Amino acid sequence: MASHIIDFLILGNNFGTQEMRDVWSETNRLHKHVAIEVALAQAEGELGVIPQEAAEQIARSANAQALDITEIAKEVARVKHSLMPTINALQKQAGEAGQYIHYGATTQDIVDTGTVLQLQEAFKIVLRDTQLIAIELKRLAKKYQYLPMVGRTHGMQALPTTFGFKLAVWLDEFVRHLQRLYEIKDRVLVGNINGAISTYASFGEQGPEVEARTLEILGLNTPNIGWQSARDRFSEYASVIALISGTVGKIGNEFYNLMRTEINEIEEPFSEGKIGSSTMPHKRNPAALEGLASLTPPILKSVALIHESMNVEHERDAMSWRAEWIALPEMNIYLSAQLQITLNVLRGMKVNDKQMIKNLELQNGLLLSEKIMFELGKRLGKQTAHHIVYECSMQAFEQDTPFKTVLLNHPALLEHLTKEELEEWLNPVNYLGSAPQKVDVVIDYADKTGLLTKDVL
Amino acid sequence: MASHIIDFLILGNNFGTQEMRDVWSETNRLHKHVAIEVALAQAEGELGVIPQEAAEQIARSANAQALDITEIAKEVARVKHSLMPTINALQKQAGEAGQYIHYGATTQDIVDTGTVLQLQEAFKIVLRDTQLIAIELKRLAKKYQYLPMVGRTHGMQALPTTFGFKLAVWLDEFVRHLQRLYEIKDRVLVGNINGAISTYASFGEQGPEVEARTLEILGLNTPNIGWQSARDRFSEYASVIALISGTVGKIGNEFYNLMRTEINEIEEPFSEGKIGSSTMPHKRNPAALEGLASLTPPILKSVALIHESMNVEHERDAMSWRAEWIALPEMNIYLSAQLQITLNVLRGMKVNDKQMIKNLELQNGLLLSEKIMFELGKRLGKQTAHHIVYECSMQAFEQDTPFKTVLLNHPALLEHLTKEELEEWLNPVNYLGSAPQKVDVVIDYADKTGLLTKDVL
Amino acid sequence: MASHIIDFLILGNNFGTQEMRDVWSETNRLHKHVAIEVALAQAEGELGVIPQEAAEQIARSANAQALDITEIAKEVARVKHSLMPTINALQKQAGEAGQYIHYGATTQDIVDTGTVLQLQEAFKIVLRDTQLIAIELKRLAKKYQYLPMVGRTHGMQALPTTFGFKLAVWLDEFVRHLQRLYEIKDRVLVGNINGAISTYASFGEQGPEVEARTLEILGLNTPNIGWQSARDRFSEYASVIALISGTVGKIGNEFYNLMRTEINEIEEPFSEGKIGSSTMPHKRNPAALEGLASLTPPILKSVALIHESMNVEHERDAMSWRAEWIALPEMNIYLSAQLQITLNVLRGMKVNDKQMIKNLELQNGLLLSEKIMFELGKRLGKQTAHHIVYECSMQAFEQDTPFKTVLLNHPALLEHLTKEELEEWLNPVNYLGSAPQKVDVVIDYADKTGLLTKDVL
Amino acid sequence: MASHIIDFLILGNNFGTQEMRDVWSETNRLHKHVAIEVALAQAEGELGVIPQEAAEQIARSANAQALDITEIAKEVARVKHSLMPTINALQKQAGEAGQYIHYGATTQDIVDTGTVLQLQEAFKIVLRDTQLIAIELKRLAKKYQYLPMVGRTHGMQALPTTFGFKLAVWLDEFVRHLQRLYEIKDRVLVGNINGAISTYASFGEQGPEVEARTLEILGLNTPNIGWQSARDRFSEYASVIALISGTVGKIGNEFYNLMRTEINEIEEPFSEGKIGSSTMPHKRNPAALEGLASLTPPILKSVALIHESMNVEHERDAMSWRAEWIALPEMNIYLSAQLQITLNVLRGMKVNDKQMIKNLELQNGLLLSEKIMFELGKRLGKQTAHHIVYECSMQAFEQDTPFKTVLLNHPALLEHLTKEELEEWLNPVNYLGSAPQKVDVVIDYADKTGLLTKDVL
Repeated sequence: MASHIIDFLILGNNFGTQEMRDVWSETNRLHKHVAIEVALAQAEGELGVIPQEAAEQIARSANAQALDITEIAKEVARVKHSLMPTINALQKQAGEAGQYIHYGATTQDIVDTGTVLQLQEAFKIVLRDTQLIAIELKRLAKKYQYLPMVGRTHGMQALPTTFGFKLAVWLDEFVRHLQRLYEIKDRVLVGNINGAISTYASFGEQGPEVEARTLEILGLNTPNIGWQSARDRFSEYASVIALISGTVGKIGNEFYNLMRTEINEIEEPFSEGKIGSSTMPHKRNPAALEGLASLTPPILKSVALIHESMNVEHERDAMSWRAEWIALPEMNIYLSAQLQITLNVLRGMKVNDKQMIKNLELQNGLLLSEKIMFELGKRLGKQTAHHIVYECSMQAFEQDTPFKTVLLNHPALLEHLTKEELEEWLNPVNYLGSAPQKVDVVIDYADKTGLLTKDVL
Repeated sequence: MASHIIDFLILGNNFGTQEMRDVWSETNRLHKHVAIEVALAQAEGELGVIPQEAAEQIARSANAQALDITEIAKEVARVKHSLMPTINALQKQAGEAGQYIHYGATTQDIVDTGTVLQLQEAFKIVLRDTQLIAIELKRLAKKYQYLPMVGRTHGMQALPTTFGFKLAVWLDEFVRHLQRLYEIKDRVLVGNINGAISTYASFGEQGPEVEARTLEILGLNTPNIGWQSARDRFSEYASVIALISGTVGKIGNEFYNLMRTEINEIEEPFSEGKIGSSTMPHKRNPAALEGLASLTPPILKSVALIHESMNVEHERDAMSWRAEWIALPEMNIYLSAQLQITLNVLRGMKVNDKQMIKNLELQNGLLLSEKIMFELGKRLGKQTAHHIVYECSMQAFEQDTPFKTVLLNHPALLEHLTKEELEEWLNPVNYLGSAPQKVDVVIDYADKTGLLTKDVL
Repeated sequence: MASHIIDFLILGNNFGTQEMRDVWSETNRLHKHVAIEVALAQAEGELGVIPQEAAEQIARSANAQALDITEIAKEVARVKHSLMPTINALQKQAGEAGQYIHYGATTQDIVDTGTVLQLQEAFKIVLRDTQLIAIELKRLAKKYQYLPMVGRTHGMQALPTTFGFKLAVWLDEFVRHLQRLYEIKDRVLVGNINGAISTYASFGEQGPEVEARTLEILGLNTPNIGWQSARDRFSEYASVIALISGTVGKIGNEFYNLMRTEINEIEEPFSEGKIGSSTMPHKRNPAALEGLASLTPPILKSVALIHESMNVEHERDAMSWRAEWIALPEMNIYLSAQLQITLNVLRGMKVNDKQMIKNLELQNGLLLSEKIMFELGKRLGKQTAHHIVYECSMQAFEQDTPFKTVLLNHPALLEHLTKEELEEWLNPVNYLGSAPQKVDVVIDYADKTGLLTKDVL
Repeated sequence: MASHIIDFLILGNNFGTQEMRDVWSETNRLHKHVAIEVALAQAEGELGVIPQEAAEQIARSANAQALDITEIAKEVARVKHSLMPTINALQKQAGEAGQYIHYGATTQDIVDTGTVLQLQEAFKIVLRDTQLIAIELKRLAKKYQYLPMVGRTHGMQALPTTFGFKLAVWLDEFVRHLQRLYEIKDRVLVGNINGAISTYASFGEQGPEVEARTLEILGLNTPNIGWQSARDRFSEYASVIALISGTVGKIGNEFYNLMRTEINEIEEPFSEGKIGSSTMPHKRNPAALEGLASLTPPILKSVALIHESMNVEHERDAMSWRAEWIALPEMNIYLSAQLQITLNVLRGMKVNDKQMIKNLELQNGLLLSEKIMFELGKRLGKQTAHHIVYECSMQAFEQDTPFKTVLLNHPALLEHLTKEELEEWLNPVNYLGSAPQKVDVVIDYADKTGLLTKDVL
């Protein structure tokens, strides 16, 4: 029975999707190793480094499904080497030709390239879901382009904005995330087949060609030079994961706050049968949102671990490896859950537009203090206006009186404004600035990049 | 098939021990929940909060082994509540009495107290292995009390010391770790059974007694006040884990460096059949030491995550929870591997005493430059001596000449020292200072505390 | 002009107190180095390691105030050694006796012991303010022991509690912090005077006595063995800082949330003249609270850095040093601001008791769903009661109808409860559980420890 | 006197360059604020939002140099607002026109855009030094393309490589860093002038134009939408800093290890007058290299802090701000020192080619075990060859006998190889694989990108 929550039957799905867990499963890892050994043999056969027939025999006989992980694990414990037992098992499958398996290669060639193959699959999922979220954000930003709501700064009501504007800020962020993913893609998905210390010495003179051909077969890019001691590609990938997770974690936290009983502007999707609390029947908890928000910190820890693991000693060590084996799966798996939750929330959340409008009234007009100040500023000068409006704001706040009443009764304002003007100014919908227009700017830019419609596969 | 390396068949044992994984397994977690529900019912029965017979029936019928985790997991996915399906399954087992299961309790009561029960088991393992390492360090420090070796600062040979001294520094650290573990033990192993927001309202007036009795049955301490929103105990435990891991990670790194081909003073245990490299037959890699050193960074990430998770909102949230569910198992599991490796290494390593002595000669006498300076200082004054010795050092270094030769030929020294004196001064064994004595000081202190012989169970 | 915000004239006070900055100022650091050199000379004079008169002359002439930091800095740049220029300057002050300054010592002896002397001053401040906050929390917990307010879980209204209960949870945490500080004090405040690689070789046979006497003069404890390569004491101190900062950061976040416009139960101290926003006159921002909450993350980063720096190589390296020089001042300085803000907030905050009570009504009775369920459970059985109350809760929520109305109209309840009973049950004050009693438990325990009245100086 | 080591006179230069400290100095920060207020007024004047003459008067009178930071700091303490006193001081300078200063803007407009202006200056320095290092690495990789040295894995001697190859791996990494910097440049250097919650409401309808024109004047890009609550750009910049720092920290650690007394292949630049140790005259410490390696961990902490600070609440909070104000200067300042040290080391280090060659002989031929195995494999079959070579390796190692002797005496080999062949195979220079060729591949690619010759200013 598993001991890490990622692998828990009961809670695992809150920490990752099955699809992403499959990418990083021990089985898939092993299968990738087999695929690489076969591709290597094929390349070496083509180039004459090993006999062509041996290569063909290896390809024919290699059967990843037939490998017994439990047996391999026992052997690993005995010889204290993580890859040799797999190679031995493959050799057994290949018979005579087996001696040409892993020819010239070092453990790290197989393990690193295997990790990149897994990363390639993970990359696709991340790219797909990032795009799907962007598409959803675009739809919602347009839908709520004009829905007025309270804008808050420092946790306090500040000015009116629109819900679509809030969503457009996130959409713009997601377009940047898509740009980043495409920028790093070719630089990250690079294999590594170059021998014990990356000099290809064991492959003979054709080393670079063996590497290039093997990686071509596997669908990966070829590096200029071996990267056993240069792990910046993983760090780069991790950095983008950090950014995407930062945005979705923020969305989770934002909706969690907007769902607070006292704010109540958003509600996460609620399915029949869902139990909020084992003891309080009325509770509808933001469980999905909490899950969403709470996965960013562990992802950032994994990212930090990867960043640290750049410090490889000499031509290679096994210390950064462990960090990568821990952190790369973690960050991808946690993110897969975050992306899935984000999609579900965006698609199914309830937007309490009535409550949004009600909240605009909560401060009895103070929300528009800036507007009043600017309008009065035009008539009384900015300084004077600021002074008076500040005074009235404090009075309205302290005495819990409508701002309108205080303003209308201020002696210095009597002749400078009418009640009708004031009501106009105090209407939140009249002080949305360029919020709705900006939604269009963001959507236009997103469309122009083509990233929301690009085929990710 | 598992996706986190902790749960891998092939590599898992490098990242944790089976014993510690069992503590944090999904099965054990579930069993703890059952144990708590039973203890709660028992306490409530005794106190008359629920019928005594119901309590007895619950105790009789509850069968953790018979629960089907896969079934529970399906239910959890349906109702989106992590505990209710377990309660329902227990109710089914208990028949009529089942309605009194979980009476007055909230999910967090069960889950938090369950975590502490697991922590209690983990604590014992950590305490035991910390003590075993201390015992081993004491034995080795005494054994190698007088074995001279090079002391290094900034990676460079500095002065002679003894191997026992190096070990005594670590022993002293481990005695402090034991002190820390005992200081925090009672403060950390505290349960939490106090209802939805820790006010006991749902238990009626006997709430505090229900909690105290339940925790007494479970062998845990009772808090002054509920700690659903005060997670400092976990952070405190994590902090001590960080310190212990810091020491063993340092030991791993130290031995890794001492095992370098060019230094070669230590060799990690080598078993027949062990394969160093899949391609370089001569390689004997410090695989265990790399593993030891490389697990401190991920532990520190888990510790940092726990520290962050102190930021609970209001009376409770589910965000810090996830950090704890991730990080507490991780840090304990990784540490279990580190403690095991440390023990194995200390018990089985090869100490190359000849090479240690050979390395003392590597600099042709420069290692004793300080000694020479002090002796000459007594005769020539400190400033003059420093000046001359610096000059001779640089000359010996630049020209790769024995320090002795350079000194004997320095015109200003001709009448101030004899060859015999110089040879005496240049003998590393004569400049060990109080290194061997300090070994005794540390061991005496360790013995005085009684912590190395205290029964941990 | 300074480049780190800690040293900014304009914003520095938001990131630290002048008092704590002074502890970690370059001046104080230098003065500590002088004090140690003088104490060392005194000890060596007493023990006959250097001439008694020289020691007296050094003590007489050493004048930290007269040292010119700018000059020393220039010299440091030239000789690329951070301490020698200070020693040279002291030697100049001491004349002939100057050659006996720093006799037998290594740079790290002075620098490490200096850091501990600064830490001793910092420790006192932290201990003092931690106690003051505990005292304040006790006062407030008692004052608001019975003030009812909404308890929230997952950001949602859950059940009634009292404000005093919330404060008592924190008080209990602070008592634990005080216990921790006292537990680690003697273990942390330990000097280190033992020569280049801690063997005392350069001090001759009296090395351990020189160290013990020097540290006695300085008011520090003496280690069993040198700790140049064992930095767990700093990590231990950092860990407790992490915990204290975790609590105050949580308090900051909690009050920030309670101050939200829509919740409005707390207001941070507001002084005349304070400007909330440069453009929105009505804004009263939780500026202090944001500052309070926002300093925990950087402290945790410094703590993590210290934890990592335990990995010293061999007998000493200069790498962990830098981490300590960066992180120890940072964590203390940031924490000093946090403790100061916490004190100010606790002493000056406005508690909006009316709003607290108003918020109890916000959900139209749903807040008491658990209570209703338990009462009905006694009459209808728990399962049935849960089912009905869940149904009524959902209906009240969906239709925005008072819970009371829905319950009174539920056909299954008609004969099982009266309107009077229901009103009694729905009164939040009748469902506070043991919240007020627990305040007394916590205060009694705090008093019993004596830690709130203990003299910290 | 400063309290953060970045601002220390004595040690500050080890933690940053004067040039980079100036970028992040309080003075420069203030000057940037003034520049932005002036640019804003100019833009608003041009667009008719404020009177043209007022704008001109503001531009004429604004005098950043004349502002008294100490006075401003006092005012800030009084009004508890970080920007208003600066605005007030500027208004005083501008006389009547002063009322139009900061017209429609919010504090964050000025502060965020100011930070980006500082970042722009920092960016240039980082780009310049990254390029300079790349140029230096190219020069050295070519120079040492064929210099043979020991390649090490797991800290142990593994196979021969060339020093140029090691440098080429780093060059390739630096070329990627340059690519990354150029990719993010336009996305990062984006200003933010859009009012209290980014809706431009206070600027009237011309808001977007005011922003665009102001940023054009300042030389920054204009965002699609305000990013007060979207801080991914800073996180992206920080990520690249993490990667660059990761590489140079690794270089520092690598050279630190190669400089070990026992390895001695590299020596950091040594200047006359430099003091290695205050007590050991012979010590030449890798002080610069330790400094280089030790600054990566604090940078990674600052990067992690920035990543966390993406979690802004609602339209804006002041919590992520503090993280940025702390972390952005830190990471740039520490990195400036790292880049400077790297340049100095690369330009001035001593390469001990003789020792490199000597170390190739250290293992008495075992270094070539792989080569022997491959050659014998061709004659005996891979399995048999591996078996024999493994046996001989272990024997040579255990008995400290030359590998050659053991092989020549192995009965199974007697007829399969000649002494001459064996000597040929055991010559390290004959087993460099494609190492020298790869140096050319990397350099060719670097040249092709044009990034080493591109004008950064």
